[in-house]
Order: sequence, then C-alpha cells, then structure tokens
Amino acid sequence: MNQQMKQLVESLTPEWTAWRRDFHKYAESGWVEFRTASKVAAKLKEWGYEVRAGKEVVRDEARMGVPSAAFLAQQEKRAVEQGAEQEWLPYFSGGFTGVVGILDTGRPGPTVGFRVDMDALDIQESEEADHLPAANGYVSVNPGMMHACGHDAHTTIGLGLAQVLMAMKEELNGRIKIVFQPAEEGVRGAKAMVEAGVLDDVDFFFSGHIGSGVPLGEIVCGARGYLATTKLDVTYKGYSSHAGGHPEDGKNALLAAASAALNMHSISRHSQGSSRINVGVLQAGSGRNVVPGSAFLKVETRGATSEINEYMLERAVQIIRGAAAMHDVQESIEVVGMANSCDSSSELIPFIRSQAEKLAEVHTVHDFVVAGGSEDATYMLQRVQDNGGLASYLVIGTTLAAGHHNEKFDIDERVMAIAIQTYALCALHAGELEALGRGKSGSQGQDGKITE
Amino acid sequence: MNQQMKQLVESLTPEWTAWRRDFHKYAESGWVEFRTASKVAAKLKEWGYEVRAGKEVVRDEARMGVPSAAFLAQQEKRAVEQGAEQEWLPYFSGGFTGVVGILDTGRPGPTVGFRVDMDALDIQESEEADHLPAANGYVSVNPGMMHACGHDAHTTIGLGLAQVLMAMKEELNGRIKIVFQPAEEGVRGAKAMVEAGVLDDVDFFFSGHIGSGVPLGEIVCGARGYLATTKLDVTYKGYSSHAGGHPEDGKNALLAAASAALNMHSISRHSQGSSRINVGVLQAGSGRNVVPGSAFLKVETRGATSEINEYMLERAVQIIRGAAAMHDVQESIEVVGMANSCDSSSELIPFIRSQAEKLAEVHTVHDFVVAGGSEDATYMLQRVQDNGGLASYLVIGTTLAAGHHNEKFDIDERVMAIAIQTYALCALHAGELEALGRGKSGSQGQDGKITE
Amino acid sequence: MNQQMKQLVESLTPEWTAWRRDFHKYAESGWVEFRTASKVAAKLKEWGYEVRAGKEVVRDEARMGVPSAAFLAQQEKRAVEQGAEQEWLPYFSGGFTGVVGILDTGRPGPTVGFRVDMDALDIQESEEADHLPAANGYVSVNPGMMHACGHDAHTTIGLGLAQVLMAMKEELNGRIKIVFQPAEEGVRGAKAMVEAGVLDDVDFFFSGHIGSGVPLGEIVCGARGYLATTKLDVTYKGYSSHAGGHPEDGKNALLAAASAALNMHSISRHSQGSSRINVGVLQAGSGRNVVPGSAFLKVETRGATSEINEYMLERAVQIIRGAAAMHDVQESIEVVGMANSCDSSSELIPFIRSQAEKLAEVHTVHDFVVAGGSEDATYMLQRVQDNGGLASYLVIGTTLAAGHHNEKFDIDERVMAIAIQTYALCALHAGELEALGRGKSGSQGQDGKITE
Amino acid sequence: MNQQMKQLVESLTPEWTAWRRDFHKYAESGWVEFRTASKVAAKLKEWGYEVRAGKEVVRDEARMGVPSAAFLAQQEKRAVEQGAEQEWLPYFSGGFTGVVGILDTGRPGPTVGFRVDMDALDIQESEEADHLPAANGYVSVNPGMMHACGHDAHTTIGLGLAQVLMAMKEELNGRIKIVFQPAEEGVRGAKAMVEAGVLDDVDFFFSGHIGSGVPLGEIVCGARGYLATTKLDVTYKGYSSHAGGHPEDGKNALLAAASAALNMHSISRHSQGSSRINVGVLQAGSGRNVVPGSAFLKVETRGATSEINEYMLERAVQIIRGAAAMHDVQESIEVVGMANSCDSSSELIPFIRSQAEKLAEVHTVHDFVVAGGSEDATYMLQRVQDNGGLASYLVIGTTLAAGHHNEKFDIDERVMAIAIQTYALCALHAGELEALGRGKSGSQGQDGKITE
Repeated sequence: MNQQMKQLVESLTPEWTAWRRDFHKYAESGWVEFRTASKVAAKLKEWGYEVRAGKEVVRDEARMGVPSAAFLAQQEKRAVEQGAEQEWLPYFSGGFTGVVGILDTGRPGPTVGFRVDMDALDIQESEEADHLPAANGYVSVNPGMMHACGHDAHTTIGLGLAQVLMAMKEELNGRIKIVFQPAEEGVRGAKAMVEAGVLDDVDFFFSGHIGSGVPLGEIVCGARGYLATTKLDVTYKGYSSHAGGHPEDGKNALLAAASAALNMHSISRHSQGSSRINVGVLQAGSGRNVVPGSAFLKVETRGATSEINEYMLERAVQIIRGAAAMHDVQESIEVVGMANSCDSSSELIPFIRSQAEKLAEVHTVHDFVVAGGSEDATYMLQRVQDNGGLASYLVIGTTLAAGHHNEKFDIDERVMAIAIQTYALCALHAGELEALGRGKSGSQGQDGKITE
Repeated sequence: MNQQMKQLVESLTPEWTAWRRDFHKYAESGWVEFRTASKVAAKLKEWGYEVRAGKEVVRDEARMGVPSAAFLAQQEKRAVEQGAEQEWLPYFSGGFTGVVGILDTGRPGPTVGFRVDMDALDIQESEEADHLPAANGYVSVNPGMMHACGHDAHTTIGLGLAQVLMAMKEELNGRIKIVFQPAEEGVRGAKAMVEAGVLDDVDFFFSGHIGSGVPLGEIVCGARGYLATTKLDVTYKGYSSHAGGHPEDGKNALLAAASAALNMHSISRHSQGSSRINVGVLQAGSGRNVVPGSAFLKVETRGATSEINEYMLERAVQIIRGAAAMHDVQESIEVVGMANSCDSSSELIPFIRSQAEKLAEVHTVHDFVVAGGSEDATYMLQRVQDNGGLASYLVIGTTLAAGHHNEKFDIDERVMAIAIQTYALCALHAGELEALGRGKSGSQGQDGKITE
Repeated sequence: MNQQMKQLVESLTPEWTAWRRDFHKYAESGWVEFRTASKVAAKLKEWGYEVRAGKEVVRDEARMGVPSAAFLAQQEKRAVEQGAEQEWLPYFSGGFTGVVGILDTGRPGPTVGFRVDMDALDIQESEEADHLPAANGYVSVNPGMMHACGHDAHTTIGLGLAQVLMAMKEELNGRIKIVFQPAEEGVRGAKAMVEAGVLDDVDFFFSGHIGSGVPLGEIVCGARGYLATTKLDVTYKGYSSHAGGHPEDGKNALLAAASAALNMHSISRHSQGSSRINVGVLQAGSGRNVVPGSAFLKVETRGATSEINEYMLERAVQIIRGAAAMHDVQESIEVVGMANSCDSSSELIPFIRSQAEKLAEVHTVHDFVVAGGSEDATYMLQRVQDNGGLASYLVIGTTLAAGHHNEKFDIDERVMAIAIQTYALCALHAGELEALGRGKSGSQGQDGKITE
Repeated sequence: MNQQMKQLVESLTPEWTAWRRDFHKYAESGWVEFRTASKVAAKLKEWGYEVRAGKEVVRDEARMGVPSAAFLAQQEKRAVEQGAEQEWLPYFSGGFTGVVGILDTGRPGPTVGFRVDMDALDIQESEEADHLPAANGYVSVNPGMMHACGHDAHTTIGLGLAQVLMAMKEELNGRIKIVFQPAEEGVRGAKAMVEAGVLDDVDFFFSGHIGSGVPLGEIVCGARGYLATTKLDVTYKGYSSHAGGHPEDGKNALLAAASAALNMHSISRHSQGSSRINVGVLQAGSGRNVVPGSAFLKVETRGATSEINEYMLERAVQIIRGAAAMHDVQESIEVVGMANSCDSSSELIPFIRSQAEKLAEVHTVHDFVVAGGSEDATYMLQRVQDNGGLASYLVIGTTLAAGHHNEKFDIDERVMAIAIQTYALCALHAGELEALGRGKSGSQGQDGKITE
C-alpha cells in the first residue's frame, strides 16, 4: 500500500467528514444543487483543476425532470442565503448544476474518468434523537430534502479523490476527469452530461455507490443487470361538473387514469427477458361531489434490455393515449427520467480487485453483484464501452443505520476513505490496463484530444 | 257492433288460424322473410289491393343488421323449397322483404295506416309435448328460428284486416295502407320503410303488439315511454401469438373488449332522463394458450329521449375506439338497429277506446301503458306525427303459455280476431277523427298523392 | 305588514350585518363551530330562550365525518383565542356543536320549528381586492376555512329570528324551536340532531337556503327532488415493495382502488328512478418506483328515493370489498355523510306564499323548485312529516358575487332581513295551519310533551 | 449399428405406417382414447408384455379436465363401432385410458422407462386435396378431433419400440416399461399416471416429441426450460334481467369476467424468473338486450419454477374470487391441467448423443433445446429424478407440412423408425448408465420391487 496516500488520507479525513456533514445539512434535490455544485467547482479550481461547469457539461435538451423556472429561481436564492459560492452560480443558473474537474499530467497515458452524484431526495429528514445527523446538528435544514441515499458522501468522495490525485500528480500519467453529476434520483441527469460529450474521451471509467446492502469492509468490483428504465409523468385534463346535478357534462379524468393504470399493468410479459411496469402514484379529483376533471400519474417502465424497455414504453404510451381517448380527456406525457441497461466490463474486474485488496480496511472483495433496479451512470458506462473503453460500477460497503430512502438513513463515514483510496489506486495503476488493448484514444498521446 | 263484420270474422277465423300456424311452422328471421312476404303479397294482390313490395318500400341504405349475401341467398333457396310464391321473390331478393297493401276508395277521406311485423327470432323452438305447436305439428321446421314473440299472429292480423276492409270497402272513405314490416327484432327494419316514404301520406296510424303482459280480453289504447335505442356490433381484430412462447407479439383483443365493456358501463348517468347501456354479449379468443386475436361484442344504448341516446352512443363509440387504441387492435363498429323514443298521440286514445269498447270479447280497456323497452314502430309514429298526423301503438291482450322470447312461447289465438276487429273499426270510423283538425294531407282529396 | 316587525328589523339590521361579518371572519368548518355555537348559545340565553346544547341535542353515535380528536382539541383552543364564550365550550367539547333555543309561550298552540346551519367549507378564501370581505376586512382568518355557501348568513338569520320572535312574544302561541345545526357540508350533522329527538315535537317546520340561483327579491316556498345520498371514505392498505427489485412482494392498493372506481361507476342504472355514483377523489401511492401500498377514495352514492340510494350503496360496498379481495389488500369504509330524499309538504306552500307576499322586498314568489343535489335538512323534514307534521325547505333569493363553493362567493346581505321576516311571519300565523288538521302534538296543549 | 435391429426395422416399417394412419383416421381426444388404448393393450399382450391398464395405472382423483359422463359413454360407444378391442374396454370405461407394457428380462439391471402419448386435438381436420391424409383416405372420421400434434406417431413409436425390444429381448437386462399416456393436450393426464406409481421404479426414463421445429435427420438429446403451468376453467353465474326494463335486477357475469381478465393480466411480474398469465377465451352473455347472467373463461398461468407458477395461480384465484364478489355472482374454478417445470438430466445427454449418432439417418445431434411452452411428461421426469434416477425429454426431428395444431399438420413418417431405433438403443445400452452411480433401485435385482 502506498505510504504517501495513507498519510494523506489520515490527515484529510477530518476535513472530508466536515464536508459530508455540510452537504448533508444543506441537502439539495435534483437540478437545484446550486450550493453543492458551487462548493465543488470552487474547491477544484482552488486545487488547480481545469473546471468545466454548467451548460458546457450539461446539455440543455437532454435534461429530464427539470423543475419549474419559479422553483429553480427560488432555490437559487435559497442557495445564496446558505452560502453558495456566488461567482459560480451563473454557470448553474436555470438548473445546469453539473461540474467536471480535469487534471492533465501532460504525459502520455489513458484518460481515466470517475463519476459521483450530488443530489438529495424529496424526503423529510427525521429529527428524532436516535438519528445521528439530528443529534449532532447536521440534519437537513431544507424542508422536504434529505441526503437519504448517500450522495453527500459521493460528492465528498469525488472531492477527496481530487485532492489525493492532485497531491500525487507526479505518479500519474495521461488525464484524469472527475464528473460531478446532478439529478441521479429519478435517473434524470446522466444523459445530459453524456450528450454534452463529457465521457467521449474517457478510456477507463469508474463509478459506484456506497452501501446498497454491502457492509463496511467489503467491496464489489462490478455491478451488472441494471434494468433499462424510463420514467413518465402523465397528466389528464378533463372537465369537472357537479356529480349530482350534471354528471353528463363531466369528462372524467379519474376514470381515464384508473383505466390507464389497470391496462398498463396488464401489458404482456416479454419472452426475451425481464420487464417491469409501475404506476407508483395516482392522484385524481378535487371533491367528493365533483366529476374529477384532472388526474396525475407517476409511471415507470423497465426492461432487461433497452429493447424490452422500449417495448414496455411504447405499449404504456399507447395505453395512456387510448385511455384519454376513451374518456375524452387530454393527456400530456413527459419523460422525466431514463437509464440504460448496462453491465460492467468483465475485463476490469481483476484489476479493480487487485487495487481493492491493497487496502487494509477491506477484508472481502466480490467480483459481481446483480443489480435489482436502475442507475443512470449506465449511460456513461455505455458511452465509454461504445468508444472501445472499459467501465465498471462498484459497490463500496458501508453499514447503514436504516435503508436507502428511509428518513433515518445514515452511513458509517469510514466508507469515504475506502472509496477514495480504491478510486485513487485505480487511477495510479491505470497504465496496467493498456495491456488489455483497450483505451485507444488515450494511447494517441499527450494531446488529450477529445474524440468527438 | 257491426253485424256484417261479426259474420265475416266468424267465417274467416279458421282460415286465420291456419295461416298463423303456417307462418309459425315456416318461421323466418329478420330480412329473410322470403316465404312469408311472398304469401302476403300474393294474397293482397288476389284480394284486389295495390301492392308495393321490395326496394320500393324498403330503402336499401337505411336497412340495418342485414345478414351476409351468402346467408340471404341460402335462405331464399330455402324459401323456394318451402313453397314461397315464386313470382314475388324477385322483389325481395337480397333482403328487401317489405310489403305494403293499398286500398283507395276513391272517396275523399284520410289515409289510415296500419303496420304489422313479420320476422321470427333466433331461437330454437321447444319440441316438448307440452308445447302446443310441437304437439300439433306446426313447430318451426327452420332450425334456430322461432316465432317466439307473436309476429306470426301480427302478420295474420294484417292479412285478416285486409280481408275485412276489402269486404266492407263500401263503408270506407279515403285510403287504407297496410304495412308489413321485416326485421323488427333488433329494431332493424322500420327505419328503411320510413325512409322509403311509406308513411309520408298517412294521417292516422295504428300499430301494436299482442300479449306483452296484458291478458286476453284487455286492450291498451296507447303505449308511451319507449326508449330511443341504438344497437351496435363491435369487432376487434388484434394478433394472436403463443401465450407461453411469445406473448409480447400478441395484440390482445380480449383485453380491449374487457376494457371497453367495463368503461362503457361506467358512462355517466344523464341528469335529463333515463339512460341505459348494455354489453349483452362478449366473445373473445380461440384457445387457452393463445393471446386472443379477436373479440366480438353486442352492445346497445338507450335514452329517454333521442338526445340522451345520442349522448350514450357517442360516449360508447369513444370508448370502443379508445379501447382499441389502448391495445393496438383494429375496431369495427356496425349499427345494426335503431329506434326512436316516441309516445302515442293522446288525442287518439278516446277514439281507440270507443272502438275497442264495441267488442264483446273485450272487457277492459286501459288508456296507457309505460313501455319498458324499445320498438321500431316508433319511427313510423314519429314520421306520422311530424307530418301533423296522429299515431298510436296499442297492446292487444292475449294469455301466454310462456313469456316473450321463451322457447315455449305460445298465444291464445283468439287475440287475432280481437285485433282485426279493433283495427277495422278504427278504419271504418276514421272520419270522426277529422274533427280533431288533424290529418290534413288526407283531406286534400282522392288523388292519394304522396307528400314526400 | 306588521308595523312592529318592520321597525324592529330596521333597528336590528346593522347588528345583524355585524354578526354575519364576524361569523364570516371566524369561519369554522363542520364539528368545530366552537366559537360560532358559543356565541349563538350565549345570545339566546341572554334573550331569555331556554337553551339546549351539546350532547343533549347532538347524538354521539349518529354524528358522521367527525375530525380526529387532535384536530378537535386544536380547533377548540383556536376558538378560545378567537373569543369564544368560554362558559359554553364544555357543552361543545369533542365536536358536539349543536344548539337549540326554545321559546314557550305557555299558551296552547303548535310547536313551530326552524333550522339554520353554521359550518364553513374547506376552501381558502380569496384575498383579492374585488372580493368584498377581503376589501372590507372580514375575510376569513382561519386558513382553509371559508363561508362560501352562506351559512354565516343562515346563522345570523336564526339569531335575528330569535330576537324578533322574543320581542313579539305576546303575539305568539304554542312553542318556538330554533335549531342551529353543525356540519351540513358533507351532510354530516342533521341526523345526529334528529336522533337526539330535537324534531320530535315539532308540528310545522321551516328551513331553507339563501341564493341557490334565485336572485334577491324572489322566494321559493318549497324545494323537492332532493336525492338521498351517502358519503363514503374508503381506505385500502396493501403492502409496498420495490417495483424493480421485488414487485411480487407488493400488494397493490392503487390497482384495487382503480378497479373499485371503474366498477363502481359501472353499477347498473335503476329502472325506478335517478341514481348517481361518484368517486370524486382517488389518491394512491407514494413514489414512482414503489408498488403502491395505500390508497384513499372519496365516494358518494345518490338515489331519487332512499331505496335507490340504498341499492347504489350496497352495490358500491360489494365492489369496494371485492376489489380489496382481488388485490389482497385491507379495506376500511367509513360513512361520513348521509341525507334523505324528501319533498316539501305541498299543504304548506300556499301558507308560505301568503306570508312571503306580505313583504315589500319580495316581488316574486315561486311555489316549487326541483333540487339538483342533496341536503341533510331532509332528515328533519322527514321526521316532522313522519310524525304527522308539515315541513318545507325554502329558497330565499339573494344575488351572488360568485357561485356557491367558489373562493369569491359573496351575498347581498339584504337577504337576511327578508328571510327573518318570512320565517317570523310563518311563526306568527302558524295558528292558521291548524285548520289543516295536522300538527296534532301541538294541539295537545302547553305541556310541550315530546311525542316519541 | 446393430444389424438385427436394422433388419427388424426394415421389415416392420410398413406395419408401423399402417398403424399410424389407422390411429390418425380414428383420432380420439383426451380421456376418450378408447379405441387407441384397446389396440395398444391387445398388441402388447399378444407380443408377451405384462399389461397394466385403466385404474391400475391412472389414479382417478388425479385426472384433470375429464369430459362429462355422457360424453365419455357416447365416445365409448363410438369406439366400439370403430372396431375397439372389446375385451379391453372395461379397463378404460369412464376415461381411464392409460396402458403400461412391462418386459422383465429376469436378469439384473436397471428399469428403463419410455413414455408416449395417445390423444388427438379438438380440431377439425382439413379435407383439402393438398392435405396428404385427406388425399390418401386416412383423414380423421371423428368430427372435431384430429391428430394435429403427432401423437398418432408417438403411439406407433411406443408400439414399434415394444416390438423391437421383445424381438431383441436376449440382449436386454433389467426391466423395460413402456407407458402409453392419455390426455397430454391441456397437460391433463401425466399426473394421474405418476400418482398411480407408474414411474416409481424407473431408473432411466426417456420421452420425447417429434417435430417441434427440428427437421428430419436431427435429434435433440434433452429439452429444458419447460414452464410449470396450471390450466383453469372459470365459470361465473350471475342473474339475467332485461337491460332496458329492469337492469338493476341483473347480476352481471360479463363485467365480473371482464374485471377478472383485466386484473389477472395485471398480476405483478416475479423478480425470480419468468411468469405468464393468459385469459385465452372469454364467452359471456346471451343476448344484446339481456344483462349477462353467465360467463366462462379459459385461463392459464405459467412460471419458470413451480413456486412462481404457484404465485401466479394464487393471485389469479384471488382475483377470480374478488371479481365475483364485486359483481355478486357465483364463481366456480376447475383445475383442468397442470405440468411441472423440469429440466432433462444433463448426465444423460452424452449417452443419448452416443446412441443417436449410431443411426445413419441422423446427421445432426444437438445437446439441448430451450422449450417455450409446457409439457406434462415433466411430472414423470421429476418423479424419476426425485427417486435418484435420470430422465430426459428428446426431440426427434421431422419435416412438417404445417405447424403443430394446424388443420393441415402432417409429418414425414420416416421419423418413426428413427425414434424407435434411438429409444431401442438407449434400452439396449442402459447398462452403461449404471456407471453414473444412479439408478440404484434397478441394481437391486430382478424382483422388480417398487421402491416407494
């Protein structure tokens, strides 16, 4: 194990803990990570990174599930009040809250990319005494927003990694890219960064999640089996009328929504692999004696492959539209999230294993885990693999106080140092990967040219 | 009571009984009354009536629920074999099985119209010994066709009326029109005769039904409250696939039909009056392990007014189409029947009562009954009333062996003489009605011109 | 027209206006009319009425749609802060907010009853300048509660009537009962007062509503055609699971609710009269990627008769339970409101007309109006009629700024004086009604004994 | 290749062809294979087999989808008329149409089992000239029954195998059991033979299907991935009423069926493997204007494992019952078929391959195929494997004139000799399998004791 890194980590750990708790306290949900992103950008700049931020790394048309302009403006104001770095806010204004830090060694070598996500969830954090953040004064001060999935730690891991790599710059070759992504919850943000070309020059790519059922001291080198998914918001507009006096004047949006929900769940299984459909939320109507004039549904489709997800999505949209036609109401369908199905590159697994096994804090290393759900880092893995690169999504174990997305979710903060070191070792030893005959763009030399 | 009529009726009754039993034995369903209509036309001609038949009195485009050409041809052949009057068949070929008999006295006076219907039902008649037609050898010889509603008697009543009126021609004024309608079951035939202009010159119009819950010896002068109705046949064509092997290839017509049925029944009530919807039949799919590729529904809507029926129909069609769109199947909708809402003219009631009370066989006369269902004579009533005429739909009581549409339905045949005499008296005394200031077209003289 | 009354009304009108605006400002929704009811009780007591309040006039088990204990307690505290008459609060504590004022003349004569209602709606009142209550400083200070149906005026009319009758006590005979009912909205309160026996000794009964589409200066003597109705809150409890990872573990409450909604709307029409069903609100699920573990529906049934409503209700309950069984979820059904179908007594109409025509402010008097919806005063009319008494529900016209239940609803306050005088005249002349041979209990003398 | 066998096959082939065409002509559907089974039993007896037949090998209570007693009796009569072996009919009477032939060599060695099925499908065979059986005079004479899946050849293969093995008896050791199963279509018959203990002493078991997409000259040694399945017939009994006159009196079985169908298809996917649901047939209602009083559904569930099928089945039954409760109709559910999920034993594959490769007529041998559907031989494979034996389900290729279950289905009859030889070689070389340490019961010697 690298002695220099060990000392660095020891000295920086208190700072990392402080940052994570600060991000936790000022939890910001997807596309309004104004304060978080500004802190990230300012630090990267300070440490000597080339920083790209905002529209340069987040393609406008590819963003999904962006809140209303009014909410964005209000949240930006809130971020200012909570100490955002104001010189960076113009980049993020309007919800372009992505940041990329680049370290170019000037030496030949591959481009190694890392990705962390920054957004909180729409959950009201517990204020009970047995919840550590509440007891220790860093419970979220933003109502209805909470880091209940660990992205506060992810952001900190990205920053810690940036510090360590800059400190050990002389031992690196090629280029390092650290991607700070907004709006992972609801799988809304990755696509916009991929479409902005952020991943196009990356030869070896690493992302990951802490926890996810893996305890502290264990690492999984690669996840596979992520389901492709699409998230839809559906609104039906009908016409309200008095249910006693003039029921025939109504156009019943509730019945349209009920029919759509039932029929979407009845979409046929697919013989070529797993599929899923869920109408997770249905809200319709205003009063008991009023024919319901409006309805709203939150829907998601999934598939073992993008083709199967596409099949589910196409059928769902047919049903949503047919149900509207049935009840003579107007539908509007908004795609508010998307992710690919994607597997980690098997060629990377032994390499990651060999790095992870160098850490004294890690007692068990697993090759693979089969993912249950969806994750939009898959867009990034896919883009890297499509360009001939290798990519993997790790799970870095940490023991949890309560499950992900629970109002008492909490982590063992020691996971951050483990993750930072694992990633840093991957970067420092990336040269070994070139033997795999992959990562061609990187081998084209020190010009670091972007292939797109 | 008219003595001449009494003697006539007495002498003709055995013949009427024989005719009714003959029609009963050779029961013919809607639009294939080839044998029945040919017998009617031949007799009317023989007795001196001006006879109009076929397309002249049945407008092609207004016919509904006409069977396939193959079935029509096969049935025409069957009629020949069963002794149809062959010189009349060319008129009826292709399903134009309507007949009108006209008696013009040459004297000034109103045009008085009567209508009877001739079709049987798609029911297999009972052959059990306790069923009189079976015991006495006039059970239907046509499989799946049975006079289970009494139209065999109606046809006979029309013929008997024609005989009596011709015999008493010198006591009549104006003109007499006796309309023999096909395809009343499923309310398919009346509209085509109305659209052919058959009712356009009628000043006073009488139609009616025997039985209907009224016992022998009682007469109801006028029915009201018939619901407007539309009958639809709906077919969904999807795509079959193996339910185990490739369910995703299927386009599920059964689920489209199920959704349509549920949602049609959920069409909102109408605040302005009664409405009805019924999916009476749903047949879908071919095998247990096959995604159903086809479905068929028999649907009807009703309304207290034509507007309400229109509202129900429009909503039903939206739902049928929306359900098809939902499940990506093709729908086809055929209107196979229609009837108006319509009330008997109240001005006619005292007149009819006074005629009916002349009969010794009638001990009770009711003014009105509220109809539960639908009947397409309403199109004829409506047309007469729209032209300033008066019209009524009577019920002539007869005690039944079993309910209408039952496989053991049977009547007390004495009802025929009662009906014939009631109608004949209405014709003989129609002059009294002119005092009501109605029936203007008739008063235009003996030219008998058709107003359309 | 009575001169004394005219002067009284003139002098009292400013006070009435002030009261109405005070009630408007401190709008209180159903079962939490703590402040309003305490003001009413205190004034009646002050004026010499025998006052009955709380559980004595509101039967606990017959109350419907009562809020949670916590909400009741919080609202009682709120009422104290807003100046409720504290000596009366113990009567109302826990939501027994009914009051009855009795004036016994000691002279023989009928018992004449009046009923007004006191509750506000769950609506946020408009604060825009063109809304008079906002402009003039008596907009509701209670968030989400607003007198948008005119019950503030109804309460004031009850009080004004009490003042006038007490002042003219010497011209009265028999007994006067003025009933101040809570929770009319959602038809929740009348039944509890009827079941407490409040109406059992009333011979002639008058209630009514201001506005309802009738302009100022017009009066309708009797409403009929109120639909019987039942209001249900339905909750489904299923089991949530991750829609991607373990969908089969879920018990889907949303699909149960959707099936229930669709199938309830498909309950068959009734041939004996109007029926209605409405699922006005459906709320289900918590997150897009979670199998929905809970759902909530607001349902109402209606019928032209109580039998038809009963039929609708029974079918709705079967469907609610069957849908729960289908999806293996637990249902709970709460009846939160009920009203009878009931007609005003036609014998009362000429009497009311003759009183109303005495008022100079009234230029038009209608006999009847057909009600579109439901109203729980029908329980009271029914009880009085069942006991051999006569009862009517009037409409006292007033020109509205916006429709009932709208956030800018406002009345022409002059209606209050018109209503008070109409009611007072009915009380003063009730003796004339005894000629109708009704109101027997009242004629039994001054003991005021309750007949039940 | 065994010379004796080759000559045997050559000489017997014309006989086999004749038998297959005879079975084809007298096609008999499931549980009424009276003629076929009697021919099989008579021949086996004649050749010296120990024959077990009827209830001894078909357990009554485990039979599924048995036709009505009337139909069974009528078909038995039909079989007599078509030349059934009358001495065997008493065994089969009532639908116990299974036969087992046993050949005990008296020498130590394993018990080797084979299974063929005998039933035809409910399909009307094509009589067109391009359909060989029609052209050559052996088209099915039984209306609506046709060997459209090749079980006529299967039966012949079982008989041919019996002939060959008896002829080569001296080269065999241990025991041979040839099972002739009724009612495979609809997966109704295997369970009853397994429950009768027929498979309990079998060490090595072979069954298979001809065709299935594999052309003549190819053999697949083992099929896997059969889905467990359950077949349900569902009947709803409601109450019919006139849809215009008294709709409220009806209990709508069609709406119950429609709700059940929609909701069954909406049963959640299972995360542990494939699942299927199909409502293949829905028939409801009698007439357009009648509230439908009855409905019938053919349903099937499937699962990659028996647990998943169980989950699907349990949910389906809940929904069927809940839908009945919703619409106040009576449901009845009959299980009319069942099959396991089951894989062929991989240890058998190289053995089968080595036998198949001996045949000159076979040019290609595949190890495995993944089955799309379901097959009830899986019950037999399972029972053998549970007892420590080995079992495989083969596919013996034959080129088809039209797909399975098509009215023009026809085979290349040369497949029969290939199948017979493959099976015979498996029997002759079964001793080699004992090296696998399986088939212990067989090694216990010549007592042929049943191990269970």
